[in-house]
Amino acid sequence: MARSVFLTFPNDANVHGTVFGGRVMSWIDEIGALAAMRHARKPVVTVLIDAVGFCVPIRVGDFAVVEAVVTRAWTTSMEIWVKVETEDPFADTRQNAAQAFLTFVAVDTDGAPQPVRPVLPETDDEKTRFAEAQARREQRLAARRG
Amino acid sequence: MARSVFLTFPNDANVHGTVFGGRVMSWIDEIGALAAMRHARKPVVTVLIDAVGFCVPIRVGDFAVVEAVVTRAWTTSMEIWVKVETEDPFADTRQNAAQAFLTFVAVDTDGAPQPVRPVLPETDDEKTRFAEAQARREQRLAARRG
Amino acid sequence: MARSVFLTFPNDANVHGTVFGGRVMSWIDEIGALAAMRHARKPVVTVLIDAVGFCVPIRVGDFAVVEAVVTRAWTTSMEIWVKVETEDPFADTRQNAAQAFLTFVAVDTDGAPQPVRPVLPETDDEKTRFAEAQARREQRLAARRG
Amino acid sequence: MARSVFLTFPNDANVHGTVFGGRVMSWIDEIGALAAMRHARKPVVTVLIDAVGFCVPIRVGDFAVVEAVVTRAWTTSMEIWVKVETEDPFADTRQNAAQAFLTFVAVDTDGAPQPVRPVLPETDDEKTRFAEAQARREQRLAARRG
Amino acid sequence: MARSVFLTFPNDANVHGTVFGGRVMSWIDEIGALAAMRHARKPVVTVLIDAVGFCVPIRVGDFAVVEAVVTRAWTTSMEIWVKVETEDPFADTRQNAAQAFLTFVAVDTDGAPQPVRPVLPETDDEKTRFAEAQARREQRLAARRG
Amino acid sequence: MARSVFLTFPNDANVHGTVFGGRVMSWIDEIGALAAMRHARKPVVTVLIDAVGFCVPIRVGDFAVVEAVVTRAWTTSMEIWVKVETEDPFADTRQNAAQAFLTFVAVDTDGAPQPVRPVLPETDDEKTRFAEAQARREQRLAARRG
Repeated sequence: MARSVFLTFPNDANVHGTVFGGRVMSWIDEIGALAAMRHARKPVVTVLIDAVGFCVPIRVGDFAVVEAVVTRAWTTSMEIWVKVETEDPFADTRQNAAQAFLTFVAVDTDGAPQPVRPVLPETDDEKTRFAEAQARREQRLAARRG
Repeated sequence: MARSVFLTFPNDANVHGTVFGGRVMSWIDEIGALAAMRHARKPVVTVLIDAVGFCVPIRVGDFAVVEAVVTRAWTTSMEIWVKVETEDPFADTRQNAAQAFLTFVAVDTDGAPQPVRPVLPETDDEKTRFAEAQARREQRLAARRG
Repeated sequence: MARSVFLTFPNDANVHGTVFGGRVMSWIDEIGALAAMRHARKPVVTVLIDAVGFCVPIRVGDFAVVEAVVTRAWTTSMEIWVKVETEDPFADTRQNAAQAFLTFVAVDTDGAPQPVRPVLPETDDEKTRFAEAQARREQRLAARRG
Repeated sequence: MARSVFLTFPNDANVHGTVFGGRVMSWIDEIGALAAMRHARKPVVTVLIDAVGFCVPIRVGDFAVVEAVVTRAWTTSMEIWVKVETEDPFADTRQNAAQAFLTFVAVDTDGAPQPVRPVLPETDDEKTRFAEAQARREQRLAARRG
Repeated sequence: MARSVFLTFPNDANVHGTVFGGRVMSWIDEIGALAAMRHARKPVVTVLIDAVGFCVPIRVGDFAVVEAVVTRAWTTSMEIWVKVETEDPFADTRQNAAQAFLTFVAVDTDGAPQPVRPVLPETDDEKTRFAEAQARREQRLAARRG
Repeated sequence: MARSVFLTFPNDANVHGTVFGGRVMSWIDEIGALAAMRHARKPVVTVLIDAVGFCVPIRVGDFAVVEAVVTRAWTTSMEIWVKVETEDPFADTRQNAAQAFLTFVAVDTDGAPQPVRPVLPETDDEKTRFAEAQARREQRLAARRG
């Protein structure tokens, strides 16, 4: 699990003050990788990012709150769920800006895949995400074949 | 259409010298947005990034060659295809690192969607991508409903 | 309250791989300001940073975990306590790297001080920090006079 | 040959919104070095930049289009011609912002000069630039002596 | 002794245009470390930053003038005095923005403390600062004990 | 007159550890612009950079010492001389890395040229540079015509 708050600056945004999608993707990958490394305690590489929809734009000056959890692990890969919220600094309100599922693989220093420990879900939410992760994985494998 | 070459630096990569997936996503969005703005000649926002697979890692010191084309436009939205290649600076070889389809919407300064001109495909490649773009769009709409 | 994890890079460090004290101070101020803004829901400015000792150096590649809490508020000012830990990405161990007390003042857009709501401590830890904050404040006022 | 498009940001410019000459020089050197490395497929160092005039200022938010070609190569050195255009994102117009001739030398990892392959001009433009490159080189040598 | 002038940019500041305290601390540590390295001609690490008060805010677009001098050296440590002024680019006026005393220790590449040469004060100002440095050091040692 | 010391980092350099020519040009323009603004106390734009030769490479970890002086002013333009030295942090030695003459013009917020006060040379060095500046200016005008 990993969480960070990011300040947003003029250089993160187009001339109309909306933070670039690519900047958001970069936070998603960073916090996702942190969560994956904390689970595996090994170096990790991003192998797949599922489709990402951007709901509400993040305005320059807003805080971006990014949170990642490991939903499930297989032999050498992990699925990470990342949620991005935009927080108005002056109003204590948050809106969902984007969410994504990423697949990371643990590697050694030559890039060869390494085993990771399993995820043991405890709460009901964790158990639901754990079960759904397997379904998403099969969809991904089917998409790659098809 | 837009194209750029990026140098890669130690700060773009994890301690083992592989460029972060999020850094690659950030280039994809940047060059994709450039292609979309050049087509629409209006501000654009990223609304969707389809699933992105990372094939070959980009090593620090390699060049990242990023190229984007507008495959098709609808009323206010455009599908952009972005291809990332990694180029060995000392060997004149390139490998496919990642590719992605992004959906951008043209907006005015208040963020309201604005009309864009259609894409008129000319070459056979362009015609194929144009036709396939419609199929991808229907899949996205179906995924959103389902 | 605010918390972030920072990746550390070659550009954050001297040639021997130890993260600059100034980089750590910059994280302390950033997360401290976030906690202060979340309490006041107004813009804030740093007016004072108490003495900061650096215990354990942060090595490039380590994670820096930064956490800030508002200990007490007076009419327009707030005391924020910030703790920085260094986390080994491959070993699940953390060490205390630095801690600091900062004083922020809430301001309007012309920089004039603005009232902030009081801190209402609940846990025993919060009550202890709340009480000690008053003593630290008096020391600061005495130091300024003296 | 190398080409890139750069987005321009508030941090690239003075308070009046005009991109710094030094930022433009930095792009010129980067894309010039890329073209030189692609020709030599060896590390290169900048040894000389001829006089650079800045014609039209680049405004923050404009695209900077930078293109570099190798005009001629001698034993270990190459002359690179770099052109910078400023493109209005909302109007499909470009203006010449700056151009420069740079001399790079191919080196090994100790910095010792290394041979590079010759340029074989094909088009009329290439032949003209190739011929003029020799004249510019003699002027440079004369200027250094004199 | 070390001195630098820094341009200030939108990304250095909050949305109201005041440069972050943490950015100022980062300049203080950078120029302080430079002065310490120039005295010791060895790598240095920051071990302590005394309380820092921020007097006048630095506005985006102002120049920040940062100057550091080594006031005194002990076996392996040095006290550095750093002064930050804000300069109006269009008016030739400067105001005191902040000042700080930092303690650096010279180290070898394993981080083990290394001897540094003594400071030999010459001017009256230098002699005063030299004498006062000893008093400040004793206060720091007392604060650590107490 | 303006002067700064820059630390150099892995991201400033190619994979072989030599700082990019473009990075050096960016420092030259920055410190040159500072000296010009301090003379004119008006915004300035770079209009010309004379040929720049790079003598000694700057290695990552070295300090880059950059110094700029206004040699002469005409109605609205100024010639600035900038010198870059590379300093070994561990040896108290400096070498000349590059030098350049830049021409800046003072402007108002619409970019229209504005008058600047004359330079009044005092020392012998200043008088020599002042006289030579006129000769360099005539060469530039001749080059532009020719």
